[in-house]
Amino acid sequence: MLSASQIKFIRSLAQKKERDASGLFVAEGSKSVRELLQYFDCQLLILPKEDTEKYEGRIDETVYASPKEIERASSQKTPQGVIAVLKKPQNNKLPDFSENNLYLALDGIQNPGNLGTIIRLADWFGIRHIFCSADTADAFGPKTVQATMGALGRVMIHAVDLPEFLRDNQPKIPVYGAFLGGDSIYSASLPDNAIIVMGNEGNGISDKVAEHINNRLEIPSFANGGETSESLNVAVATAIVCSEFRRRTLPL
Amino acid sequence: MLSASQIKFIRSLAQKKERDASGLFVAEGSKSVRELLQYFDCQLLILPKEDTEKYEGRIDETVYASPKEIERASSQKTPQGVIAVLKKPQNNKLPDFSENNLYLALDGIQNPGNLGTIIRLADWFGIRHIFCSADTADAFGPKTVQATMGALGRVMIHAVDLPEFLRDNQPKIPVYGAFLGGDSIYSASLPDNAIIVMGNEGNGISDKVAEHINNRLEIPSFANGGETSESLNVAVATAIVCSEFRRRTLPL
Repeated sequence: MLSASQIKFIRSLAQKKERDASGLFVAEGSKSVRELLQYFDCQLLILPKEDTEKYEGRIDETVYASPKEIERASSQKTPQGVIAVLKKPQNNKLPDFSENNLYLALDGIQNPGNLGTIIRLADWFGIRHIFCSADTADAFGPKTVQATMGALGRVMIHAVDLPEFLRDNQPKIPVYGAFLGGDSIYSASLPDNAIIVMGNEGNGISDKVAEHINNRLEIPSFANGGETSESLNVAVATAIVCSEFRRRTLPL
Repeated sequence: MLSASQIKFIRSLAQKKERDASGLFVAEGSKSVRELLQYFDCQLLILPKEDTEKYEGRIDETVYASPKEIERASSQKTPQGVIAVLKKPQNNKLPDFSENNLYLALDGIQNPGNLGTIIRLADWFGIRHIFCSADTADAFGPKTVQATMGALGRVMIHAVDLPEFLRDNQPKIPVYGAFLGGDSIYSASLPDNAIIVMGNEGNGISDKVAEHINNRLEIPSFANGGETSESLNVAVATAIVCSEFRRRTLPL
């Protein structure tokens, strides 16, 4: 049984303030939970009473709860049964860029679903580190965790002062950014090591961050001069850029 | 002023049944509305009382409403001020595939946000027709309209019996589909005319549709043999596939 104070505490973790104070976050749904238990310590695992499946991982406490209790504890529109209270990773080590690889930097991505989708596709493209500006959504918020579909365990999220971070690391690794009016991503020369900067949904990359970007890339539209959308969804644009960078590393 | 029955009617259009019966749909937010007014007739335009902007288009009736009335009529979590009741296009003509071009076919895309994002990116890539299976979300639902960001006016949506449609048109145009285990999209040969089939978020392309697909493509993961996500978000996957098809048409 879940106590009223447990339910209240789990619900409070939908707020970033509470996640920061406690070092905890919440994942829901058996598939996500199972995947994340491989990577994160679990303080509390809440299972539906009738659940007979086995969950493996470092689990401090397991509680069986009624559908009503789970519904009250859930911050999802459609509660998914299983809920895990997980410990956020501590002291994620920043990479030193000594190895050739791709990295993402996010400058003010505000939609939690977009952020989650970006973390999931980063995982697919073998990107292990994402650097997030202070005004990017929190990767451990419930909507983001849900959209990552478990990828959050394999991609390290670093909250950084993005202009400063890029300024300091630019001598070590080229910095690319997606801008309207940049060079076509299809014809630009792309290295196998780079930080790729993606900007805010409405406003793109901020001036302060743009200062430290050496290479401006654009995904050209194929509307053939006709009217078209002003821009692509940021997760979609990130996917196209990552795909094109990775494609270039393949043998011909 | 908006009457109670107007508010009730506008809200009812969040239901597909009511949209089908009336031939109407709702768009919200000045940017989306302004864009869609270029393409669709407007039965009712609802503006905030203090709005002095001009909206151009074939508008039957304009009503000024209080913030409270707009909030009550809106089906968005965060009402965006302007609301337009628009007339759905009638008798969209199916293409005859005599011209070389790309087309999308969606087999059971159920998330309205994913569908909207796909319509928006189709617009970007110059794709003018999308064929939707019966179990694909309705393109005129409020969440989808919002996610298209105005692209809905430039991309024709055709509800079809997808297996039958592909069977009948396969002799005229090659049919490609995204499958796990298909040929790598980066090395497969890709024509400049094709129907590209994308499948359901959880289950991929159905067996009935798969029968009529001649060419199976995969977006390979770059996780280098390590654990990775099982799949990509479907809008993200669609974007990567469209980008790669279009890239091949560029002069080297």
